[in-house]
Amino acid sequence: LEINTDTTRLSEILTVNKKLVDRVILDFLPVSNSSHEIQSLYEMMRDYPSRGGKGIRGTLCLLWCELFSGTREKALITAAALELFQNWILIHDDIEDQSDLRRGLPSLHKKYGVELSINAGDALHGKMWELLLSNLGVLGAETTLTVLSEFARMLNETTEGQQMELFWTSGNKWNISEEDYMLMVAKKSAWYTCISPTRLGVMLSTTGKMHEKSAPEKMSELLNKLIRFGISFGIAFQIIDDVLNLTADESKYGKEILGDLFEGKRTLMLIHLLNSLGTKQRTEVIEILSRPRKNKTSAEMKSIYELMKSSGSIDYARQIADAHSARAMKLFEETVSEQSDIHPRTYSQTKSLLEYLSSRDH
Amino acid sequence: LEINTDTTRLSEILTVNKKLVDRVILDFLPVSNSSHEIQSLYEMMRDYPSRGGKGIRGTLCLLWCELFSGTREKALITAAALELFQNWILIHDDIEDQSDLRRGLPSLHKKYGVELSINAGDALHGKMWELLLSNLGVLGAETTLTVLSEFARMLNETTEGQQMELFWTSGNKWNISEEDYMLMVAKKSAWYTCISPTRLGVMLSTTGKMHEKSAPEKMSELLNKLIRFGISFGIAFQIIDDVLNLTADESKYGKEILGDLFEGKRTLMLIHLLNSLGTKQRTEVIEILSRPRKNKTSAEMKSIYELMKSSGSIDYARQIADAHSARAMKLFEETVSEQSDIHPRTYSQTKSLLEYLSSRDH
Repeated sequence: LEINTDTTRLSEILTVNKKLVDRVILDFLPVSNSSHEIQSLYEMMRDYPSRGGKGIRGTLCLLWCELFSGTREKALITAAALELFQNWILIHDDIEDQSDLRRGLPSLHKKYGVELSINAGDALHGKMWELLLSNLGVLGAETTLTVLSEFARMLNETTEGQQMELFWTSGNKWNISEEDYMLMVAKKSAWYTCISPTRLGVMLSTTGKMHEKSAPEKMSELLNKLIRFGISFGIAFQIIDDVLNLTADESKYGKEILGDLFEGKRTLMLIHLLNSLGTKQRTEVIEILSRPRKNKTSAEMKSIYELMKSSGSIDYARQIADAHSARAMKLFEETVSEQSDIHPRTYSQTKSLLEYLSSRDH
Repeated sequence: LEINTDTTRLSEILTVNKKLVDRVILDFLPVSNSSHEIQSLYEMMRDYPSRGGKGIRGTLCLLWCELFSGTREKALITAAALELFQNWILIHDDIEDQSDLRRGLPSLHKKYGVELSINAGDALHGKMWELLLSNLGVLGAETTLTVLSEFARMLNETTEGQQMELFWTSGNKWNISEEDYMLMVAKKSAWYTCISPTRLGVMLSTTGKMHEKSAPEKMSELLNKLIRFGISFGIAFQIIDDVLNLTADESKYGKEILGDLFEGKRTLMLIHLLNSLGTKQRTEVIEILSRPRKNKTSAEMKSIYELMKSSGSIDYARQIADAHSARAMKLFEETVSEQSDIHPRTYSQTKSLLEYLSSRDH
């Protein structure tokens, strides 16, 4: 099988799938209401979904479904609900992390205030479940409920991961082990970015096929393997994302550069840096990072970034990301090799996309 | 049929049903985790559900199920999920309304901070859907999905109502019509306090009964009538709740007395007061209420309360509540009289409880 790693082709895969998913979302979300106030809620709910973003989670779900020779249409509502998940949880995340920018524009609470934005996040969260209920006509009752259960699991994992990270920030805790960091990332990021999109795509590929129904144990084994795949992939993805926050070109980025340092976010680079420094310098760095955002200067953040570079923290993080990416790709190949009905073109697309996402250099 | 309006008996009805529902909730929510941080999330999630509260929504669902000769056990998980709804949305409401007290104790964000509490609300919200999915074993796939759809509708209505109220507060809007106020209360309070608990109880009463399956139109008509019943009941309930906020004895109350005035909450009493005052006094009252909470004094809040009394605003609100309560009870009697298999003891209990809740004097 030929692998095409051309990024133009990759962004096309994302664009095509995102377009399909976006149509489902924007057709589904309410548009207008005779009450001025409720109309304003609808505008808030459509705000993040209208801003773009890569649509990674929805695309992964559609690709895995096709990869296992399923019909893309069967996974479309679920893929759209994955993107709604991302959108409502970002509304709340941006408040929790005090992020001022999202996809190049002011975050929702900067536009409308915290109070209205918490509620709009809840409203969009409700719409995610409502959209998933509309799977009934396409998938039947049993599969609709299976998909809902996966979303419940995904949300449990995500909120537990978010709790770990917020707990460290709010408790001013800096001595995080790499093991704790990996657990946090697996929960906070890997589940909703990769594990559930992948598992859902595979689950939905068998809809209407009789032969899979006879092998529930084989399916259960496969879905467990996809957790291991997704954890490694998700860890690589998140580390790369955090590296980009430090190294990316602001004009292309869309989020605040060095924003993670202003936020005091516990990244693998920071954990490595703190472990590398002597007591005095370590105390100084922690003192700076512990301050509220408004009491931090760009110069201070840049100096910590320079320390990370000179301490080899960024190289270290990239190495760990590479190792996890390699492990994920190995599990991907294993999984594919065990299946008899892999769709060749989708295999090529999925492999390229996974490699790109777990080792992006922009 | 004999009606017993003894409040001791009434609180017993609530206590008995709440105990059943609480057991489902506290058995369902996770207790311990090897991660200290996640353990702390579990404690936050169990906090409001462990604090008490009357359990009105769960009780109404169980009573309506029994009233229509259904089996209480069939409605138990759903009743528990209604209480979880109340609990997670209160976590977010308390942040949005800047309420410092909940059920006599500091509100969750006062104990743990806003960031962790938004996330804990989301986690508990997720648990509500997960609990509802466990209906499958008791109710089968079709009814499980019907219940989920009612929850999605209920959440849409509640977030729209919350948006209306927050929009008025954040926009410093004071010229609210009584019609807008009624729409806000119907959405924000009536749906989750009465309409959905009632409709769900009735829906679940027919589970496993064949005769009802043959009359879906009759059921649909009944469920629509219960919306009208629930709107009137919910409006009466909310007005009484707001009156109690002004007039209740602090030692028995559990929330901040005159808290609604500190919060600048648009109540029917306030709308009536502002319409009763001359321009100068109206401007003064609005100026005081528009200030941030910390710039308001108890003396100022008391003086506005006194103005409400002397302007007849509280009497007016009580009259409107009485009218809605009477309308709700008429619709209740009509609904009951149209059914052939009403459970007599439950009829007596439900009627007493509805009368009490829509005209409480403490």
